[in-house]
Amino acid sequence: MVMAWPHNFPGLASIAYNFAQYVEELSDGAITVKVNAAGELVGAFEVFDAVGQGTADCYHASPMFLAGKWQPATFFGLVSFGLNAVEHCAWMYFGGGEELQDKPYRELLNLKAFTCGHTGTQMAGWFNKEINSLDDFKGIKMRSSGIAGEVMRRVGASAVMIPPQEIFTSLQSGAIDATELCCAWLDSANGFHQYTKYYYAPGWQEVNSAGEIGLNVDLWDDLSDHEKLIMRHAAKSANSTNLGEWPYYNAKAMDTLRDEHGVELRTYPDDVLTALAQTSSEVVAELAETDDYSREIYASWKDYRDTALRYSALVDYPMYRARKLAFDAGA
Amino acid sequence: MVMAWPHNFPGLASIAYNFAQYVEELSDGAITVKVNAAGELVGAFEVFDAVGQGTADCYHASPMFLAGKWQPATFFGLVSFGLNAVEHCAWMYFGGGEELQDKPYRELLNLKAFTCGHTGTQMAGWFNKEINSLDDFKGIKMRSSGIAGEVMRRVGASAVMIPPQEIFTSLQSGAIDATELCCAWLDSANGFHQYTKYYYAPGWQEVNSAGEIGLNVDLWDDLSDHEKLIMRHAAKSANSTNLGEWPYYNAKAMDTLRDEHGVELRTYPDDVLTALAQTSSEVVAELAETDDYSREIYASWKDYRDTALRYSALVDYPMYRARKLAFDAGA
Repeated sequence: MVMAWPHNFPGLASIAYNFAQYVEELSDGAITVKVNAAGELVGAFEVFDAVGQGTADCYHASPMFLAGKWQPATFFGLVSFGLNAVEHCAWMYFGGGEELQDKPYRELLNLKAFTCGHTGTQMAGWFNKEINSLDDFKGIKMRSSGIAGEVMRRVGASAVMIPPQEIFTSLQSGAIDATELCCAWLDSANGFHQYTKYYYAPGWQEVNSAGEIGLNVDLWDDLSDHEKLIMRHAAKSANSTNLGEWPYYNAKAMDTLRDEHGVELRTYPDDVLTALAQTSSEVVAELAETDDYSREIYASWKDYRDTALRYSALVDYPMYRARKLAFDAGA
Repeated sequence: MVMAWPHNFPGLASIAYNFAQYVEELSDGAITVKVNAAGELVGAFEVFDAVGQGTADCYHASPMFLAGKWQPATFFGLVSFGLNAVEHCAWMYFGGGEELQDKPYRELLNLKAFTCGHTGTQMAGWFNKEINSLDDFKGIKMRSSGIAGEVMRRVGASAVMIPPQEIFTSLQSGAIDATELCCAWLDSANGFHQYTKYYYAPGWQEVNSAGEIGLNVDLWDDLSDHEKLIMRHAAKSANSTNLGEWPYYNAKAMDTLRDEHGVELRTYPDDVLTALAQTSSEVVAELAETDDYSREIYASWKDYRDTALRYSALVDYPMYRARKLAFDAGA
């Protein structure tokens, strides 16, 4: 297995290690998986080619990292103003997402993938100035990836895509002066607070980021039915574990960032968020026009995403507001 | 296996059926599980005794249904103004919840349980009058269970606990004039909209409701290590499936309730929610004083719950607000 992460990336490397362990446990030791970090066999963005070509058997990565090869893969990982973690499971398992992924992955990439691992709600990013209007993005040199990178460019920022493990040195050298990566646990482990002052919510660009386990499709086809079921259930079991891992450690890490590192927490103003949503909507619709695969994927995703946002505005938003009221009242 | 649900309860019976299927798949057919509905072998609230005493091997139920026997079990299922679905996974898998459950379940109930299945955000319930202030609860005869039932009594409602499958006939007969059960998918399948007019958000009483698979602890102890791993991973895989099942079907069901059945959707006012939170906080603290087990469980739960709510107010609340802004802008 090749990962798109260093061994010590919290919440991401653990997914690969858990999957490897669960496969071994469920096969009673018959199948073992050796986990290699980004850079050991291949780089973070090269794991898909390595597995598709058979250099490695499987990977764990974000489908967003396929941006240079087939960008619509990001629908299976993250989309700005998109689905939260459980909604992504909803679309993948019940809304046809898994079948829509199988076809292009087999035909374009020689891969079979299982959604596995969800960061949950991310943060908008780290800045050295306050963001009070869209104009404040102008001239910022920000690490921002995929759809969000294009959105940031359209609102005037200078957005660059940098592999996760190189962000810290880019901030240190001044090559960038702002970044987003994930959320409190992983961001604090990367030390971004050492070179920036403000940590902004909400993660409009990654309401959730789903990872995936991918196998070489010829290897997959040669597995027995029982071995296929072991892979499928190991991925879903590791998915459950990871869904709990992020909220546990994120909450503790945020306390540490605020209380021990003096990070100043901010939220984007409503008009900034509305403008980002409108620009995102255009960028996502353009991405959908990549090819026939992406048109079909987008139609399915958009149908459920709009239904989910309508539901969530009625059900989830009032619930999180109620919990905030409870917290503010000390209850 | 005995379930606390009828065969046709969407989103709940499917957890039991999926667990049974996954155990069979992972054991390559060596272990088979026959699923019995509530009332076939024992009633919904009697599944714990049946399994503890060995009449059945395992169950799927809400730990809330242990209220008559050991009410603190509700910490492993749902608590008013408590944890959302992924936070519950966080506390169970990483915050010590599973170990805290093992001890009393073994010593008091002769059971070994795995958290399995999460409804996600629920609704506050169905009413025939609008709720504009706490006074509007006075005199209402409402089906409401566990901690929430006690909270409703303290704010003046007449709250009764009724097994899920008997709620519809209780509304029909006029024995109750309001109810809560779950969320759009299960509630609409139960037809509550036929006898009530207003459907209120948010589900303060069940931010999430976690189910559990429970095994007779002597049976559990006699399983081989490999069989134990099959049970554990089957439960976690079924958990992933169910986490996606609810948001998919809930969103569709809510559209149907509003567009085809003319249900009027409402949200409790802020001051009502704050008062419910304060009363909940008292009731939960009293429940914690049940025994030494519950004191230890509450201390762990409360520590993470307060951390999670502080985090969520900073991170999740702004994100759901941002998605609402996007939805309102048609983006």
